[in-house]
Amino acid sequence: MTDSKLAGKPDGAKPKSGKRERLASAAAQVFHQQGVERTTLSDIAAAADVPLGNVYYYFKTKDQLVEAAIGSHQESLRVVTDQLDQLPAPLDRLKALIGGWIEQRETAARYGCPFGTLATELDKREDGLDGLDRAAAAVMRALIAWVEEQFTQLGRADAPELAVSFVTAYQGMAVLTNVLRDPEVMTSQGRRLADWLDTLAPA
Amino acid sequence: MTDSKLAGKPDGAKPKSGKRERLASAAAQVFHQQGVERTTLSDIAAAADVPLGNVYYYFKTKDQLVEAAIGSHQESLRVVTDQLDQLPAPLDRLKALIGGWIEQRETAARYGCPFGTLATELDKREDGLDGLDRAAAAVMRALIAWVEEQFTQLGRADAPELAVSFVTAYQGMAVLTNVLRDPEVMTSQGRRLADWLDTLAPA
Repeated sequence: MTDSKLAGKPDGAKPKSGKRERLASAAAQVFHQQGVERTTLSDIAAAADVPLGNVYYYFKTKDQLVEAAIGSHQESLRVVTDQLDQLPAPLDRLKALIGGWIEQRETAARYGCPFGTLATELDKREDGLDGLDRAAAAVMRALIAWVEEQFTQLGRADAPELAVSFVTAYQGMAVLTNVLRDPEVMTSQGRRLADWLDTLAPA
Repeated sequence: MTDSKLAGKPDGAKPKSGKRERLASAAAQVFHQQGVERTTLSDIAAAADVPLGNVYYYFKTKDQLVEAAIGSHQESLRVVTDQLDQLPAPLDRLKALIGGWIEQRETAARYGCPFGTLATELDKREDGLDGLDRAAAAVMRALIAWVEEQFTQLGRADAPELAVSFVTAYQGMAVLTNVLRDPEVMTSQGRRLADWLDTLAPA
């Protein structure tokens, strides 16, 4: 239980049981809502409904909880992409991903992208102290790789660059939705992104 | 001198003299590099080369320095758009703006967008405590309004939505450049954005 990587869940569901998993999931949520710097271990213990004294059994430092939160985001991404992979057409998978972002527009208006804002905050740290920025980059790369696979299946030779453009568009609309406090930015820009996908599909 | 708004500079240059202006400019820079939460008044005093004791004469709290940093970003934006307005063609103005972002790619890889990351951090705060999130939103709206004016001059009826897409693209490429620590993301995505502009110009 002291292994710092989140165990894969064979049922594909978000882990609900197990104090360690609950703490990792709560850390991801609390960091999203108030940022890493403003968060205490006590905040996370309360959100996970775990006594503070127990937290130290699993996590000695806040950085270990940051690492666990990144693992929780990685696991959430895996669950989402596994679900999207059930759809037969790559274009529909990408559009369903956009649809999920639009569904979360109110949360994005309040707190931004759960993962992008965490990675952005970690990137302000001093170089090379902890490697958490690289752990966060790995999750972003996993999303880009999955998107790239969809464009490859669409027969696009420029799939790598299209994938970066697609994820760039999402991160940008999340920033503007958040800064302008306007969920409609996500809706309208999400629609534009879906329209752009249609121009890329084979005729 | 205790007015919390930055005075407009008739010469259009970034203010270099005056302790208040130096502190505001230093605050913007230090917040960019290490975030608001991790920054102390002492860090800003050192960056501005102003004795810490003097800082309190101008700014009683860190939040007042955040407000001044937002004012410094607003002033920088005004200086940049005033320069761009010297170019005769709106398309060239927008491309020159992209060129400036690409020039700053190494800084973006290390710290992200100077303004976007500040606004993102402020948006994690509790609702309605300080209004700094609204002050930051006003700067983002000013950038969008200037971009919209260029699209209007290009004769585009959909100028408002295009302007949001344009700024969204920049914020997204800044996030990915930063998270992936890869300045080439800004270069390649900046070129794509410029190519997209060419498709919008009148034939």
